[in-house]
Amino acid sequence: MPNNCFSVIIAGGKGTRFWPLSRAGRPKQLLKILSRKSLIEETAERVYALGGRAQTLVVTIADQVAALRRELRDLPKNNFLAEPQGKNTAPCIGLAALELVRRNPAAVMIVLPADHWVRDRAAFRRTLKAAVGLAMQNDQLITIGIRPDYPETGYGYIMKDKTVAHKSTSTAFLVKRFTEKPTLAVARRLIRQHSLWNSGIFVWKASTLLQLLARYQPVIAAGLESIKRAAAGKSLADPSPKLRAVIAREYKKMPNLSIDYAVMEKAGAEGKVLTLEADFGWSDVGSWAAVHRMTPKDADGNASQGRWLGLGAKNCLIHAPERLVVLLGVENAVVVDTPDALLVGALDRSQEVRDLVDALNRQGLSSYTI
Amino acid sequence: MPNNCFSVIIAGGKGTRFWPLSRAGRPKQLLKILSRKSLIEETAERVYALGGRAQTLVVTIADQVAALRRELRDLPKNNFLAEPQGKNTAPCIGLAALELVRRNPAAVMIVLPADHWVRDRAAFRRTLKAAVGLAMQNDQLITIGIRPDYPETGYGYIMKDKTVAHKSTSTAFLVKRFTEKPTLAVARRLIRQHSLWNSGIFVWKASTLLQLLARYQPVIAAGLESIKRAAAGKSLADPSPKLRAVIAREYKKMPNLSIDYAVMEKAGAEGKVLTLEADFGWSDVGSWAAVHRMTPKDADGNASQGRWLGLGAKNCLIHAPERLVVLLGVENAVVVDTPDALLVGALDRSQEVRDLVDALNRQGLSSYTI
Repeated sequence: MPNNCFSVIIAGGKGTRFWPLSRAGRPKQLLKILSRKSLIEETAERVYALGGRAQTLVVTIADQVAALRRELRDLPKNNFLAEPQGKNTAPCIGLAALELVRRNPAAVMIVLPADHWVRDRAAFRRTLKAAVGLAMQNDQLITIGIRPDYPETGYGYIMKDKTVAHKSTSTAFLVKRFTEKPTLAVARRLIRQHSLWNSGIFVWKASTLLQLLARYQPVIAAGLESIKRAAAGKSLADPSPKLRAVIAREYKKMPNLSIDYAVMEKAGAEGKVLTLEADFGWSDVGSWAAVHRMTPKDADGNASQGRWLGLGAKNCLIHAPERLVVLLGVENAVVVDTPDALLVGALDRSQEVRDLVDALNRQGLSSYTI
Repeated sequence: MPNNCFSVIIAGGKGTRFWPLSRAGRPKQLLKILSRKSLIEETAERVYALGGRAQTLVVTIADQVAALRRELRDLPKNNFLAEPQGKNTAPCIGLAALELVRRNPAAVMIVLPADHWVRDRAAFRRTLKAAVGLAMQNDQLITIGIRPDYPETGYGYIMKDKTVAHKSTSTAFLVKRFTEKPTLAVARRLIRQHSLWNSGIFVWKASTLLQLLARYQPVIAAGLESIKRAAAGKSLADPSPKLRAVIAREYKKMPNLSIDYAVMEKAGAEGKVLTLEADFGWSDVGSWAAVHRMTPKDADGNASQGRWLGLGAKNCLIHAPERLVVLLGVENAVVVDTPDALLVGALDRSQEVRDLVDALNRQGLSSYTI
């Protein structure tokens, strides 16, 4: 990869969807739910293979920096960028773009969520190299579109327009429209129309993103401009107390917006977004049911981390690193064992784990969620 | 109660049906599954109200004596009778009868399993007093028959013959026939025919039982005779090493027989068994499903010991004294949490817990069963 190319890992996840494993102080990206490595460790290793550690940036909320530094010990200390508070992805990616332009005015950035699953790493790298090549050539935004496996209603979809480029491994299309989390019927229609899953992996010149923020999101752009002035050429990853205060002040003013809504949809409508169609085996790690889907299973459809025994157990997910779990005649269930709390749930209701965390907090059981 | 009346609690249960709570070294009767008291503690307290502690004997396997003495601290030390090995109930009850006849030649014994549930203690006492009254008057065997609530296939049934006595609270019938664990269809027919559940609670003169053993089970009777000679009037509850060796030697020769098969069925065929019909709310505590049936439940049919939270949980049994359990959309399940192992099972398959224990032992996981 050219040395003006940077990877930016967005690690802002909260600890609700994977309770009881995830807690407020141990968010999703730190969990070892797919392997013996945490999600962010897996993401970082995939990304190091693109541009190396020096070219990798992690953006996260300030109070998670210490934990992430411990998790990614071999990433340079000044490659962690702290947000003063969570404001969704648009301010976060804007801040990263600002820092990258400071490091290299011609920076191309690959934006990646910290908590995704990728089956084929080599295909993943080939796709991103192709995307970087495209981004170098023009000022368009590139989003990686995934050929869908099934009509998932929890994802966003990309409707393709005409083909604009064909690389050896991937084809790029103009984006016609984005569709957020569709109904099942709509998801099925989108698949019939060859729409793609929106992976949330983006590639563009950092300067292009800043220009588009200035155009579509003047409040965010103005905040970033103030931060840039206060930094006066110094790194945002190692801010003085004064600079930190400026970042906090400007963040407070910024709207809570996703990059999809803040920039992608608007730029897409103006024909400025391409999607590179890929098929490297991808999934958002969004629920225990998703973990079950992407984990190797036995002949009865059971997936596990930890020691377990089943009698008539089918289609279950067991996460119990410490204790023996025995399932008797249980089907389509998730069992998650932690030192102080235990979840037994219907797999197809695992989206509601978030509601459980709310219920625990309401009922004075927040010691089990922090 | 007259002071020649003794209660004999049979505490020979193993640690299989209530795994993971029960273990080989922590058998069923020591479990606190119905309340904060262990099953044997509840049984003992019910029984103390009949004839007092001095008149209560506990018979168990030698290696469980220490644990039972710890559990029943206020029972005199020499009221624990140790069997050298488990040989089902016939040798066990024979040994107890031998000791009681030694203590009082006119002894009447009430035999009770250690692990039953009784709803109405006052009715239970009234029934047993009536049974003792009957047993004093004649040389018949009396078994307490329970009016069935539903066609349970795990119990034995008693077909009644003609009425022989009517007490204020109970009616006694001659026993026509015993039926062991019937099919569901047979259980339904038995209920239509007003048959009773066989509670396994028996009342008779100790001398009568010994006579009938001599008649139907000469090997057991001969063994008991040798033990009696070796004891030479000394207590079997505090045997010398020599006496202990004789008991062990004789036990080895005895057949492994239940009192039902060894004596009751044969005596019943000769018109020597009465059943006293009772309705004090009784259940064998035979499986997690049985525990669920007899435990108070919330509006959704959930019964629990320990702290738990449910979202859409129905008809579940939760036993988790140490940790928080959260159930999401789970129905008809049992969740049992112990420090090293966790069971999640379909309630209606809880009879198979025994098979799970076998499977654990076969798979080299016996550290979880001992």
